[in-house]
Amino acid sequence: MPSYFVSSPGKVILFGEHAVVYGKVATAGSLGLRSYSLIQNRTDGIVEVSLPDVQLARSWQMKDIPRQAPWEGFPYPPATMNTELLAQLTAFVDLGTQTNRSQAAIALLYLHSYLTKDDIAAQGYDFSVRSNLPVGAGLGSSASYSVCVATALLKINGHLTGLDTVTQRDLVNQWAFQAEKVIHGNPSGIDNTVSTFGGAVAFKKGAIEPLPGFQSLRFLLTNTRVPRETQVQVANVRKLREKFPAIVDPMLDAIQEISTSCKNLFSQENLDRAQLLSQFGELVDVNHGLLAALGVSHPSLEKVREISSKLGLKSKLTGAGGGGCALTLIRDDVTPETVAVVKQLLEAEGFYCMETSVGGPGAGILTLTEATSIPEFLAHDKAYFDATQNWAYFV
Amino acid sequence: MPSYFVSSPGKVILFGEHAVVYGKVATAGSLGLRSYSLIQNRTDGIVEVSLPDVQLARSWQMKDIPRQAPWEGFPYPPATMNTELLAQLTAFVDLGTQTNRSQAAIALLYLHSYLTKDDIAAQGYDFSVRSNLPVGAGLGSSASYSVCVATALLKINGHLTGLDTVTQRDLVNQWAFQAEKVIHGNPSGIDNTVSTFGGAVAFKKGAIEPLPGFQSLRFLLTNTRVPRETQVQVANVRKLREKFPAIVDPMLDAIQEISTSCKNLFSQENLDRAQLLSQFGELVDVNHGLLAALGVSHPSLEKVREISSKLGLKSKLTGAGGGGCALTLIRDDVTPETVAVVKQLLEAEGFYCMETSVGGPGAGILTLTEATSIPEFLAHDKAYFDATQNWAYFV
Repeated sequence: MPSYFVSSPGKVILFGEHAVVYGKVATAGSLGLRSYSLIQNRTDGIVEVSLPDVQLARSWQMKDIPRQAPWEGFPYPPATMNTELLAQLTAFVDLGTQTNRSQAAIALLYLHSYLTKDDIAAQGYDFSVRSNLPVGAGLGSSASYSVCVATALLKINGHLTGLDTVTQRDLVNQWAFQAEKVIHGNPSGIDNTVSTFGGAVAFKKGAIEPLPGFQSLRFLLTNTRVPRETQVQVANVRKLREKFPAIVDPMLDAIQEISTSCKNLFSQENLDRAQLLSQFGELVDVNHGLLAALGVSHPSLEKVREISSKLGLKSKLTGAGGGGCALTLIRDDVTPETVAVVKQLLEAEGFYCMETSVGGPGAGILTLTEATSIPEFLAHDKAYFDATQNWAYFV
Repeated sequence: MPSYFVSSPGKVILFGEHAVVYGKVATAGSLGLRSYSLIQNRTDGIVEVSLPDVQLARSWQMKDIPRQAPWEGFPYPPATMNTELLAQLTAFVDLGTQTNRSQAAIALLYLHSYLTKDDIAAQGYDFSVRSNLPVGAGLGSSASYSVCVATALLKINGHLTGLDTVTQRDLVNQWAFQAEKVIHGNPSGIDNTVSTFGGAVAFKKGAIEPLPGFQSLRFLLTNTRVPRETQVQVANVRKLREKFPAIVDPMLDAIQEISTSCKNLFSQENLDRAQLLSQFGELVDVNHGLLAALGVSHPSLEKVREISSKLGLKSKLTGAGGGGCALTLIRDDVTPETVAVVKQLLEAEGFYCMETSVGGPGAGILTLTEATSIPEFLAHDKAYFDATQNWAYFV
């Protein structure tokens, strides 16, 4: 009766937010903040699900959950979403459709319906996910959840031996994308790709390309606690562009070139780490300035820049802006004391700060030698997982 | 024995600073802050000069000052600078070469050498200039001085009847440009053109074009008292462009398009004043963002933006950045109370604020009905001139 401990990271946009709406290339990286999940077989034919982050604790009889007949392309997901199954599962979980809780449950059971083998259907399983990612902060918490679900279900049903090859990760990514579709309707696929593969990617509408040579970078991630207004900000940029296309279009071009320059930076073999971080910092500054020029900054985000720049650090907003989160690059030569001071000053403004990394490992599976019960898993402080597991070794 | 009261404005860059270094179009306007000068004949063959702003008070015998033989192209200045005369005058005033005081005296006597007619040479004159423009703040104080000198000397020597035609102003502008060359070596010609003609101009390397239809706008001009570092800022932008040309070049294009959009705004006949000011404010915001993205802002300038934006006002740095001045647009619907609050908050930061206008009248001459002595002229508080003379009526 093996237990699997599965983990996958969040994502953060490094460069190119808003420009990507107009078909430009943007850059995203995996975030050091991760989701953690435990899956293990039972013997009683029951599925017990604990998702404390969305206040979901439910169990179902395996025999009651719909299962799909073998399909073309197995073990890869069918090309189109199964809307009939979705409706069936929505009725089955009976939690409405618009809440995180309901979407998480339906996404899980959607994958379950396709991936569950007969032997597992007879046994049932316990499944729990806990996340260090804030929900709705633009940090890919739903994709991280989706990757955990896909990896755990693929693994326990024997569709996946490990995560050693691109092919194996691609299988996880395709199923995670299905779960994202259940949750978001029309996701871009960036978040689940970054969460599955880790590292960093360049992406534009319809195309995702890994950034080879990307090195993990340290950041202070600051949540301003000012609610994001993604749709409002996207609409504001659109209005500005409609009024002044000849001004805004070259700005979007410049933003795209920041992603290109970022890619070039990491492909330069003779650039030492200090130079790389210095130039990366310049790109951070320029990209924030361009976003501010597009009107999507916010006094709280400017405050993050003001405070961090006093200590020589470069920050930019990440995501839609108008609030939300900012990233502050921590160069290798920055002392822990400096980071502590910046953190203290930012938290004095009412912001919430987390030291984290970008560009680290993607999804990981750890086969536990001793069974861990869900209550044991839930009893740990969330920080325990970050502190005790180095996911780089378990991929 | 007529006395002439001559006044000319400073200038401020509205859009396009830094981009103009790379051949892009920028926009400048005349500033409501002006220089004021008094010139009147004497009878004793003495020239007495009072320039209290540069601590210069000197008198010379007319017969000791070099005078030039009639030249080709009279009354327009010779095509090339007379370096021999410059050296002669530098020795004559004997104040060194690098100080504002010395340069002001040499520029005055350079124009005197060409423009003084025999009858004036026998009589002498009193000449005094006082300026409400801070020196070295990027507000065109030397050009404003140069335009006063050119206008006063052309007028008292009978080369100029008034300032009613473009031809008359062009004559003033050409002589003011000579004075600017004495002071600066290689000036662009923008400052003296704006000071002579008033209004606003679009300019790029080697070309100055008036902006027809430009309407006078109200601004709060804030001097952060952080010294400008023009050369440092220009060098920083150059370095950034060398490192990331593909990012910086479209940003410079975007900045040029701000000037184009500004020109288009003022040429739209059906745009009401409120819409015009609203869109002008958007251009202010975008241009500042682009300048910040180029790295030429400063915490003090961001502070101006932070404070003014709290009260719904748009600000941008003006000039080289890295300190220096910021402009805050005062829309017509902004109450005096709001302006007072913003001013108070800015002054609490240690900044110095002046309410002023941009795009007002250029040089003006007023023929005084009663002689005014230099001591009387000097006795007035500087604000007296701004308060009592509407230069729009004296052009």
